[in-house]
Amino acid sequence: MKKLIQDKTTILSDMLEGLALSNPEQTVISETVVVRKEKKQQGVALVSGGGSGHEPAHAGYVAQGMLDAAVCGEIFTSPTPDKILEAIKAVDNGDGVLLIIKNYAGDVMNFEMAQEMAEMEGIKVGKVIVRDDIAVEDKEMRRGVAGTVFVHKFAGYLAEQGESLETIVEQTEALLADMRTIGMALTPPFVPSTGKYGFDLESGDMEIGIGIHGERGLKREAVKPIQDIATELIQALNEEVQAKEVIVMVNGMGGTPLSELNIAVKYIKAALEAENVSAKDWFVGDYMTSLDMQGFSLTLLESTEDRLNALNAPTTSRYFG
Amino acid sequence: MKKLIQDKTTILSDMLEGLALSNPEQTVISETVVVRKEKKQQGVALVSGGGSGHEPAHAGYVAQGMLDAAVCGEIFTSPTPDKILEAIKAVDNGDGVLLIIKNYAGDVMNFEMAQEMAEMEGIKVGKVIVRDDIAVEDKEMRRGVAGTVFVHKFAGYLAEQGESLETIVEQTEALLADMRTIGMALTPPFVPSTGKYGFDLESGDMEIGIGIHGERGLKREAVKPIQDIATELIQALNEEVQAKEVIVMVNGMGGTPLSELNIAVKYIKAALEAENVSAKDWFVGDYMTSLDMQGFSLTLLESTEDRLNALNAPTTSRYFG
Repeated sequence: MKKLIQDKTTILSDMLEGLALSNPEQTVISETVVVRKEKKQQGVALVSGGGSGHEPAHAGYVAQGMLDAAVCGEIFTSPTPDKILEAIKAVDNGDGVLLIIKNYAGDVMNFEMAQEMAEMEGIKVGKVIVRDDIAVEDKEMRRGVAGTVFVHKFAGYLAEQGESLETIVEQTEALLADMRTIGMALTPPFVPSTGKYGFDLESGDMEIGIGIHGERGLKREAVKPIQDIATELIQALNEEVQAKEVIVMVNGMGGTPLSELNIAVKYIKAALEAENVSAKDWFVGDYMTSLDMQGFSLTLLESTEDRLNALNAPTTSRYFG
Repeated sequence: MKKLIQDKTTILSDMLEGLALSNPEQTVISETVVVRKEKKQQGVALVSGGGSGHEPAHAGYVAQGMLDAAVCGEIFTSPTPDKILEAIKAVDNGDGVLLIIKNYAGDVMNFEMAQEMAEMEGIKVGKVIVRDDIAVEDKEMRRGVAGTVFVHKFAGYLAEQGESLETIVEQTEALLADMRTIGMALTPPFVPSTGKYGFDLESGDMEIGIGIHGERGLKREAVKPIQDIATELIQALNEEVQAKEVIVMVNGMGGTPLSELNIAVKYIKAALEAENVSAKDWFVGDYMTSLDMQGFSLTLLESTEDRLNALNAPTTSRYFG
């Protein structure tokens, strides 16, 4: 597999250096922690992160109206507690820090350890754990995937509005209860640091229910027309979301051209209408990728005026719109 | 090759329908012409377009501050003069219409034919032809590629400022003289409407100087580290641009993850510095793609305050930032 890289041992530092060049609002501290150059002087500060390989997540969302810091682990590897603690300390202004954590054992353990350490230093820290991926049956074990980016934007808006840490945690938890995601892939991701594919997939097959780290999915079968895929995914999501009005994210996995995502949108809309669900807003693009994987994930969030407003509020991130 | 499509005969209409859903500012008229819902009541109107398969170009740039209309041909196929004429008539408000044309025989012929027809109806029409691709030696035959998106933004800004058609043409021609692009690919594009790859490429090879329609490049060789690729491309561009300060676009070809583009940015910056050229601004992402091709193109534009200002002015397009 051919990749645009220099050295597989410097992938993370190389890409963070490049990212900062095209995002002059950002700077990298402590090697792998991306923060806003101009520290927010008041309001809850938001910290997220996790393994890299999901670009623009998470560092691309370090911007006004979204994150104050992103802690970037190696590809598909949780960042360490000391780096997370550095992020917390760098952004804290006394109004509290919210940790937005995707539900993976390593991430949860390391973010919670950093939270404890920060609290011992007198910093007020809250957390939300995103578990939007319905491909995992056990609800406690569900992975945090693309819906995490809606959380960055929603909580970021509330922080801009001057809401308290308690209010932001409460409203974000309510959002999490109303949001579900499922993904599918035509190809596995190729992990340049290990030189391996995330999984094997027969040439004519697709996989439903994949994760964002090369985790295998629920089932594999021959590739179907997008209408059939859309119908299957929407039915699965609807069973849990059960809303009449939804906000939709069609998230490219990194190697999928926008033309195909836009074709998917048409058939997703039809599948929603067949279930008497109306889409109030669409977010279509690469938000939470898995390196160069071809495929997409579909997120449904129950629509409310507050959520529409928050997700459409301005941000300086180049990657959310 | 596996694709997220329904029917290879409805790819264009399917994807335009999806595009309009996530871009509520846009609407599709006459099947393949994307226009702003709220027609601009004064100022020069901008029309571009060409074959599809380059998403978000061109329809994604139909937005305040960029294009007023995009005429979308079938995949890699020029739109017809009647559709271009419809676009011109839909956006004309009496202040004139600027056609932004990529230099391909079919596009130039059809846009010029539409221009003549519009002028016969009394509409004032100007044009610029983009020929930024240095991979073609004969300057008259040079293709219009990613630099076209800088033209959309630059001319769109001047139109917002109320500049006349003559002034916009003149300043855009000056920009074109100072801008060059070259592309490279790790894989060819797969064309879903024909079921064929744009070209063949041996498994360990890359191709330098590719076009955006599956055109073969100048040369192919074994994939090199990104530092060597960046150095080669920068040296080739510099011979023609010869500027001390540049604005850089690192354009993903559709199947390249942002992580790899950001790694490329680091080494492009170093290659520029080795030539004593300073990068004043970076635009990194998928601007002018070639379906799912893996690779990138590199555009250098001589930097001026006016150009930096125009390229950083607000636009409502989700795809330029």
